[in-house]
Amino acid sequence: MDRTTLQDTLYPQCPIRNILSRLGDKWSLLTLYTLEHGGTLRFGALQRAMPDISQKMLTATLRTLEEDGLVSRRVYPEIPPRVEYALTGRALSLLPHLDALIGWATEHADAILRDRREAKTRGN
Amino acid sequence: MDRTTLQDTLYPQCPIRNILSRLGDKWSLLTLYTLEHGGTLRFGALQRAMPDISQKMLTATLRTLEEDGLVSRRVYPEIPPRVEYALTGRALSLLPHLDALIGWATEHADAILRDRREAKTRGN
Repeated sequence: MDRTTLQDTLYPQCPIRNILSRLGDKWSLLTLYTLEHGGTLRFGALQRAMPDISQKMLTATLRTLEEDGLVSRRVYPEIPPRVEYALTGRALSLLPHLDALIGWATEHADAILRDRREAKTRGN
Repeated sequence: MDRTTLQDTLYPQCPIRNILSRLGDKWSLLTLYTLEHGGTLRFGALQRAMPDISQKMLTATLRTLEEDGLVSRRVYPEIPPRVEYALTGRALSLLPHLDALIGWATEHADAILRDRREAKTRGN
């Protein structure tokens, strides 16, 4: 990464920072992950898959992901209306990177948790 | 990823989720990124590199990263004490994944920002 990119990224209004910050939100990551493994899902199914997310937070998260072109929302004109969510092609291009992160976290989780406990013991 | 891992990850107390959530925090990412490109840095240099972070938030972020074994903190017994921060080997194993994410965001930033503007125009 060259110097220009570095400075751009450190700049508070940098769009890269903004995009990563929206993605880094734990609910965004978890929603993408749920759609990756669950396929096309209705709102209720998403909510059941993420038992600790509130309806309001799931609505906001899906709207953000939709605005960023990562999730598509399809409304079927039924009564009551059926709304389904799925990953877009853009999200599919992101998933290998997220999976790599999840793999890294899985591999290092035990050591990280041990370090944390030791830090607490030292009164860090 | 098998079904067990998926269910573990969706479980609210899952350590993988917890680790990714701490990492996904925008200040953690930015601090790792700054140390990646700046090398070993003192607190003041880190703060200057991230002009919009408060002293309190930088202190908290560094402590979290240190607890997770991603940043090392070395204190030199001088007056006033000199404290330097650097990435650990564990952080170095994480950086390729973060760089891949930054690369993805850089590649897709223009299209994402355009989609966001269009979503706003539609009153989404």
